[in-house]
Amino acid sequence: MKMSDRLHGQGRVNPAAPVSKAGTIILLLAAMFAVGGPHAMAQGFSPDDIRAKYGEAAGRIQQAALSSDLAWERLAEMCDTFGPRFSGSENLEKAIDWAVETLKADGFDHVRTQDVQVPNWKRGHEFAEQLEPRYQKMPMLGLGGSIATPPEGLVGEVLVVGSFEELREKASMASGKFVLFNIPFTSYRETVAIRVHGAVEAARAGAIGSLIRSVGHDSLQTPHTGGMSYDDALPKIPHAALTPEDADRLHRIQERGQRIVIRLKMDAVTMPDATSRNVIADLRGTESPEKVVVVGGHIDSWDVGQGAQDDGGGCMMAWHAIRLLKDIGLTPKRTLRLVLWTNEENGARGAAAYARGHAEEAENYIIAIESDSGTFAPEGFAFTGSEKAIEYVTEAAALAEPVGAGGIRLGAGGVDIRPLLTLGVPIMDVLVDRTDYFKYHHTHADTVDKVSKEDMKHCVAGLATMLYILADMPVDLPR
Amino acid sequence: MKMSDRLHGQGRVNPAAPVSKAGTIILLLAAMFAVGGPHAMAQGFSPDDIRAKYGEAAGRIQQAALSSDLAWERLAEMCDTFGPRFSGSENLEKAIDWAVETLKADGFDHVRTQDVQVPNWKRGHEFAEQLEPRYQKMPMLGLGGSIATPPEGLVGEVLVVGSFEELREKASMASGKFVLFNIPFTSYRETVAIRVHGAVEAARAGAIGSLIRSVGHDSLQTPHTGGMSYDDALPKIPHAALTPEDADRLHRIQERGQRIVIRLKMDAVTMPDATSRNVIADLRGTESPEKVVVVGGHIDSWDVGQGAQDDGGGCMMAWHAIRLLKDIGLTPKRTLRLVLWTNEENGARGAAAYARGHAEEAENYIIAIESDSGTFAPEGFAFTGSEKAIEYVTEAAALAEPVGAGGIRLGAGGVDIRPLLTLGVPIMDVLVDRTDYFKYHHTHADTVDKVSKEDMKHCVAGLATMLYILADMPVDLPR
Repeated sequence: MKMSDRLHGQGRVNPAAPVSKAGTIILLLAAMFAVGGPHAMAQGFSPDDIRAKYGEAAGRIQQAALSSDLAWERLAEMCDTFGPRFSGSENLEKAIDWAVETLKADGFDHVRTQDVQVPNWKRGHEFAEQLEPRYQKMPMLGLGGSIATPPEGLVGEVLVVGSFEELREKASMASGKFVLFNIPFTSYRETVAIRVHGAVEAARAGAIGSLIRSVGHDSLQTPHTGGMSYDDALPKIPHAALTPEDADRLHRIQERGQRIVIRLKMDAVTMPDATSRNVIADLRGTESPEKVVVVGGHIDSWDVGQGAQDDGGGCMMAWHAIRLLKDIGLTPKRTLRLVLWTNEENGARGAAAYARGHAEEAENYIIAIESDSGTFAPEGFAFTGSEKAIEYVTEAAALAEPVGAGGIRLGAGGVDIRPLLTLGVPIMDVLVDRTDYFKYHHTHADTVDKVSKEDMKHCVAGLATMLYILADMPVDLPR
Repeated sequence: MKMSDRLHGQGRVNPAAPVSKAGTIILLLAAMFAVGGPHAMAQGFSPDDIRAKYGEAAGRIQQAALSSDLAWERLAEMCDTFGPRFSGSENLEKAIDWAVETLKADGFDHVRTQDVQVPNWKRGHEFAEQLEPRYQKMPMLGLGGSIATPPEGLVGEVLVVGSFEELREKASMASGKFVLFNIPFTSYRETVAIRVHGAVEAARAGAIGSLIRSVGHDSLQTPHTGGMSYDDALPKIPHAALTPEDADRLHRIQERGQRIVIRLKMDAVTMPDATSRNVIADLRGTESPEKVVVVGGHIDSWDVGQGAQDDGGGCMMAWHAIRLLKDIGLTPKRTLRLVLWTNEENGARGAAAYARGHAEEAENYIIAIESDSGTFAPEGFAFTGSEKAIEYVTEAAALAEPVGAGGIRLGAGGVDIRPLLTLGVPIMDVLVDRTDYFKYHHTHADTVDKVSKEDMKHCVAGLATMLYILADMPVDLPR
């Protein structure tokens, strides 16, 4: 493949796939690198030298990665032992304790934690039931941060709408009712708007509660939770997700001219902030340990399922890519730092705290890499950095092509690495095939069986290849 | 396509697809037709004449079917209005009342019901929870006919096995525990054995309760219910289905050497038999009304979801294939009879009662056709009858090829038509693409959104083509 092809993300990278879970491509910020950063362009080792210098190592790395199930087994152990790892929960802190002990046992250097104050929302008991035209229980999940209903639940008629526009047209019909947004999934970036803004728009129309069709596809009566927002200038109303099946059913019932009445009961409560921790562990560089390649995922998850795809797999992929390099005697010149951020899901406070607490050393960060798009077959990497750097990462990715991770797309934006981007650090997201991701995302079904052992091995192989090259190159990745 | 190809089910028919939900191919019974039945082979109209005589009608039928969503809309109306239709439930009887009224309004002849005494098992409140090594709620469904646990639930250790053979080897370890059969889905015919026989085999090993991995695939924490059996010579123990995710998780925990303790609570109760009804409605033949083509599906379902694929779609497909012929002025010479059997799921008593109550007229039945394999893209028909008849149905199916229903496979065995086969009536199953069927089968997710409007139209088109030809041919289908 020619470099110009790879630069534009042709080949294995699916151009339609969202770059990051937050769906933001920070292309504009790339401009700050184009004029040159504090790192001068190093001489004597060009992108074209990467293949000759690292081709053999890449082969060794990938062979070792493809012959080990350790990352998957560790993911299963964490998921099965601790369950979902929601900010403020005992599960999360126990999983963090386990990660610290296991990283020490693995021989990582300077394994430590960083305290982070995190939001502490508790779901509590909750249910939804259709009372008219006939009784029907409805699976549901309250959305993270929602207020509770009254203790006896909230009973009211339902107005089903297919868009924000339709709600504005029918605002006079929404007053005193529940509004149900029944908008089928197109892309996460587009459809998540009903989850984030639904309660605000329903309250603006005078609704007593807001319901959404879950943001996902291929449902088997599967509700999806996730984050949401309120507007302090408007009444706060309960906000919950029904399944696509029930949203469609209520829509059909409304279209038949029948009156719909439901009861929604949610005991959700927002407690005072809790203390959680980022986990940080190094593989100390052999020549320039003060220079750091940061890589990780978020160890917290929503409070359902096991947080296996989101984002236990990302954590284990990064962790075991580093461990694999150590195990096969390929400790690079610069330090590889694993960060397992806390509270990505409902606050991103771990990412903010990490950047704040390490701002002074950020000048020495070569790159920050995040894996938080699920653990499926790898496709490559998204990158935001200088034009010179693009040439290096493109050649590095080319050596990961044998395991499928050869594509480079411009524009990274992972939630946990964005704060480092604002400190001038180039950033990179691991890209995978997300065809099935939004079946499982934020559901009871995000369990470790959804992660293929083969895919996990390939992800470790691709990421370890990239990590080794960027942390070991004779020159720093140019800023 | 040559007839010899079609005869062997080549072309669109997937040879790997099960022929009937019960998985029984009654090929042996085909032999009884080969020596000739009470109907002599009619002269003067050969299979090769079918295309010339019915080609134009087939085109009209298919054009009309492909331009109407009525069957799908009726399915949605029934599913949304009445919910699941389990034997012994008010829902089922209300749906039967609605079907009778709607068939009368549609202009069917002699719409009537036939009383059937049906089993009356009630699920009641039920749950499963893992108590050790940590607390975890587990979605579950009790299996139809299971006894209850004690009111406080049943608490015990769990032994996970991967096969009946493994249980026999480890029988001494099963005593006093729950046995969990964690056997992944291969085909329904093969895997359903753990549901049907699991409680017997677990009781034989001295277990206090029996759990299975749900019989289905592509789970999103989706339990599947269904029928089961006890052996009167062994203790009866509670029998329930967990999700594939939880079955795998418990298996992994056991493999890590950890002790598993769960609580199972089931309030299931078997009440005295209840009265249900088969629904019967005719489109009276214009020349030989005493000769009858029977076609239908079962109106009952399990007590979860909406019974849309199993088997509301089959009922509506048959119903609206007949109605379509009437609407476009193609009432055939012989009578078309719609039968919506009751209690297929947990007793097949509707089928037995229908055959018993109509045994005297069975000599006049041309064929009995059942649609109970789901409503997906049609592939053709399975048939059990005489060799002469095979030639006719093969040529009739060929005219349904434009809508995908052109294949003929030998060996039909639908549960509701088998009793008619024993009375000498040729039988036929509607065949569809069942790739996705066992995602939804017997789950909360068997809802009308899983039935594609396009697939439904194509099913109606193919079936109406077959019905018209077999009910209108100048000769009776040879026995």
